[in-house]
Amino acid sequence: MIHANGDRLLADLATLSRIGATAAGGVNRPAYSDADVETRVAVQAMMRDAGLEVSVDAAGNTFGRCAGSAADAKPIIIGSHTDSVPDGGRYDGPLGVLAALEVARALGDERFILRHALEVVNFQNEEGGLVGSTIVAGRFPPDGLARRAVSGYTIAEGIARLGGSPDRIEDARRQRGSIAGYLELHIEQGRVLERAGADIGVVEGLVGIRYWAVTFSGVASHAGTTPMSDRHDALVAASRFVDAVDRVVRAEPGRHVGTVGQLTVFPGGANVVPGRVALTLELRDLDLGVVARLYDRLEAEARRIAADTGTTVALDPTHTNLPALTSPSIQDAVSRAANALGLRTHTMPSGAGHDAQNMSAIGPSGMIFVPSVDGISHSPREFTRDEDVRRGADTLLGAVLLLDEAQ
Amino acid sequence: MIHANGDRLLADLATLSRIGATAAGGVNRPAYSDADVETRVAVQAMMRDAGLEVSVDAAGNTFGRCAGSAADAKPIIIGSHTDSVPDGGRYDGPLGVLAALEVARALGDERFILRHALEVVNFQNEEGGLVGSTIVAGRFPPDGLARRAVSGYTIAEGIARLGGSPDRIEDARRQRGSIAGYLELHIEQGRVLERAGADIGVVEGLVGIRYWAVTFSGVASHAGTTPMSDRHDALVAASRFVDAVDRVVRAEPGRHVGTVGQLTVFPGGANVVPGRVALTLELRDLDLGVVARLYDRLEAEARRIAADTGTTVALDPTHTNLPALTSPSIQDAVSRAANALGLRTHTMPSGAGHDAQNMSAIGPSGMIFVPSVDGISHSPREFTRDEDVRRGADTLLGAVLLLDEAQ
Repeated sequence: MIHANGDRLLADLATLSRIGATAAGGVNRPAYSDADVETRVAVQAMMRDAGLEVSVDAAGNTFGRCAGSAADAKPIIIGSHTDSVPDGGRYDGPLGVLAALEVARALGDERFILRHALEVVNFQNEEGGLVGSTIVAGRFPPDGLARRAVSGYTIAEGIARLGGSPDRIEDARRQRGSIAGYLELHIEQGRVLERAGADIGVVEGLVGIRYWAVTFSGVASHAGTTPMSDRHDALVAASRFVDAVDRVVRAEPGRHVGTVGQLTVFPGGANVVPGRVALTLELRDLDLGVVARLYDRLEAEARRIAADTGTTVALDPTHTNLPALTSPSIQDAVSRAANALGLRTHTMPSGAGHDAQNMSAIGPSGMIFVPSVDGISHSPREFTRDEDVRRGADTLLGAVLLLDEAQ
Repeated sequence: MIHANGDRLLADLATLSRIGATAAGGVNRPAYSDADVETRVAVQAMMRDAGLEVSVDAAGNTFGRCAGSAADAKPIIIGSHTDSVPDGGRYDGPLGVLAALEVARALGDERFILRHALEVVNFQNEEGGLVGSTIVAGRFPPDGLARRAVSGYTIAEGIARLGGSPDRIEDARRQRGSIAGYLELHIEQGRVLERAGADIGVVEGLVGIRYWAVTFSGVASHAGTTPMSDRHDALVAASRFVDAVDRVVRAEPGRHVGTVGQLTVFPGGANVVPGRVALTLELRDLDLGVVARLYDRLEAEARRIAADTGTTVALDPTHTNLPALTSPSIQDAVSRAANALGLRTHTMPSGAGHDAQNMSAIGPSGMIFVPSVDGISHSPREFTRDEDVRRGADTLLGAVLLLDEAQ
């Protein structure tokens, strides 16, 4: 039985984590930054050392390809991303790219040729909105190239920095049905596996997300000269709404979540009764029907609160990420591979967005999660135990072998 | 009977409102700005035209003095300020200065010499913390000169721009017992008079204010990967507290108010469960005992909310403005003067801070309020009707005459 070389993978992880390293022990590699470019070049060198044929597509994504024995078989793509959020951790992204590379290397060590071509992918700018995979899926909005990324570069400038061709990104598009499968290993970024006592998360889908911009408008007035009975306090209204989101979302059993993460008070003086509050609402579930039902209740609550507080409320939908179910056959391959290794699996949705949700529009896709200690992610304290890194890579390898046989 | 010349006063108000005028119809004259300096110079010229002896004290306050007939009588000081908040209105401040000037002029027209010297004051930087009167009352903190005002100048630079001497501001101090009285006409900035159907507000005192910085701390985490049951959401906690402030303050009858005017969410991403929320709490009442009682209830609510939400809370007192009761004899003079004019009076506290609260530490002080249409202030839409401007000036004149006789 072929095994991934866990020591080699852990050494690669340590190598990459030195690029853009922060004093706090994490990495700072926002897409298109110098550290991001340096990381991608380092991964390309690793791919070449492993005997892969390296190419950068027009979107700036890196692919490392190993030909298969069946000329007509579609490729199996495995990988993730190496960019990070500002002051992020070492595992979110790189684990999936380096484990995919290790799978190719382990197969190469054994001179094991898959039927399908195997492509190891390092998508660009995952953290800034799944940019690389969105282009590959043909879903990139026409005005997106001018958008400025966290690093300060526009997406177009960033693509050029990565060796892509921003003026012909449509060349990077992959057609629906053109791949045998896509499989991504990633840290869970939550505590579900830890709580369940499981080693491997079999991802049943990536949740849909709906976002709203919610604004409560009252009347800004002098905190000293406006009696309580005369107030139209937008913050009192918004606060009741935040509480209602928490209450309504918890009231229904399920794995859906609802969050108010941004809230801004205008004019924002300590001695001014707030006249306007803008906040974000997001609701997530695998089933957008559940999201719609929760939203209807929250909209009713918002209207009632506005009436009670002498304010008005506007709820504007800003964005929807469609849920993406993963392929049952890939879920099955992951479960079987994990079970063959004696690992405990847990089937779960991904609450976070990943490149897999774009790839699911092209062909059968799936994800493997490994536990994040204490669920911490997007933080220098993000950590996944060495044994879980090894287990994840072996499960990925096993699943690739099963997929190669099946199709 | 001597009357103020309302037409002349209204013309002066119109003249001043052209300095620093904004397109929206208000004025933009933050302390020490060019527009503020220009306004103060214009008022000094008006004072000189009225035959007053003009001086600028070391703090940069302007005084226009008219000698009295009794050499040993302490001065009566009347006035207010001409600086504005950014994009403020025409009345907040200038009404009191120009009405005081009109009182001096009306007396001069009739060649009526008061027993007491009469001083018309234009305090500097009222909107930035009652700076001019704080220095006169000897309450200015040693490090205050380095503080930067809204205009961008430090207080020291600002004082120099106004013709004061920042290196010897103690020269501007007036000793307790050195004045016969201080009386200030001001717009109400609220709707109490309007609601009460009264023409003149007799101010019984300036409320005390206590400020707290309140921080709820939870755990920032990924909105997609953190189940509701795992959350320690600082914004849910803070929102319940904002609602509690509104509920607790309204539950007790009285004229106290409580406000959360600033609230900041960290890290503030739409897809991040808030880890920390900082907010301001202020409570106002004429009686700090009421404030203390309300605060005790709110602190208990905050502790309970923190326990319920898995967060912690810190409540740090940041500042206290002591309440200042006005002189009963001055209240009486104002009431009698208004009643003699056939005006309806309403006794009320001032919820806003005014220079009178500093002057009350030096000698008997009082305030006269006139109605603000719809209670709007600190806004270009700030408006007081011409007839109320006239009534305010006549009441001020009448009260000055009564005070001059009484003492």
